[in-house]
Amino acid sequence: MTEELERTMRMNHLYDFYNSLLTDKQRRYIELYYLEDFAFSEIAEELDVTRQAVYDNLKRSKDLLEHYEQNLGMYRNFELRNTLINQLKNKLGESTDSETREILDRLEALD
Amino acid sequence: MTEELERTMRMNHLYDFYNSLLTDKQRRYIELYYLEDFAFSEIAEELDVTRQAVYDNLKRSKDLLEHYEQNLGMYRNFELRNTLINQLKNKLGESTDSETREILDRLEALD
Repeated sequence: MTEELERTMRMNHLYDFYNSLLTDKQRRYIELYYLEDFAFSEIAEELDVTRQAVYDNLKRSKDLLEHYEQNLGMYRNFELRNTLINQLKNKLGESTDSETREILDRLEALD
Repeated sequence: MTEELERTMRMNHLYDFYNSLLTDKQRRYIELYYLEDFAFSEIAEELDVTRQAVYDNLKRSKDLLEHYEQNLGMYRNFELRNTLINQLKNKLGESTDSETREILDRLEALD
């Protein structure tokens, strides 16, 4: 995976967890750049601002998402939990009864 | 459980999850009132402010913790996850091998 793709995927995840703590404006910049893959110049045109404003706003929004992750670690814990749930599924294997499988699925769906 | 005790326990949990997003001052008020069980008048004396200031600061800090929970639901999901993990433990029962048990314990310890 390229570094850029990795960064984009990380931002998508952080956005999923913390977008409710952003302002509408901050959400809009992240959505256009990371989710809809607009270029800086296209965002500048869309929102009628300079490219420098796009850069600044995007940086602030990105830093804010990283700040929340740094303090709360929801994405980090989500990854760790998924690893453990998959280990558990592999461990229990085919022999798992449907009730146990349902509990595991609900556990996985919780995040 | 009395309503007051329930509220105190909830604040303790929300504080655990979100205290890193509070300022030092906000943390101090929550700690004194909910964790160390000081009365309003004792906090007022300790911090050299009026009782009204204690009330206002405490209310703001409490509202902020509820705001984070409303938006992120870390405590709600923690409770739901624990219920499911306990169901799983009961379901697998005594027959669980030590490796499976260790995965379950690590899953439980993650929050």
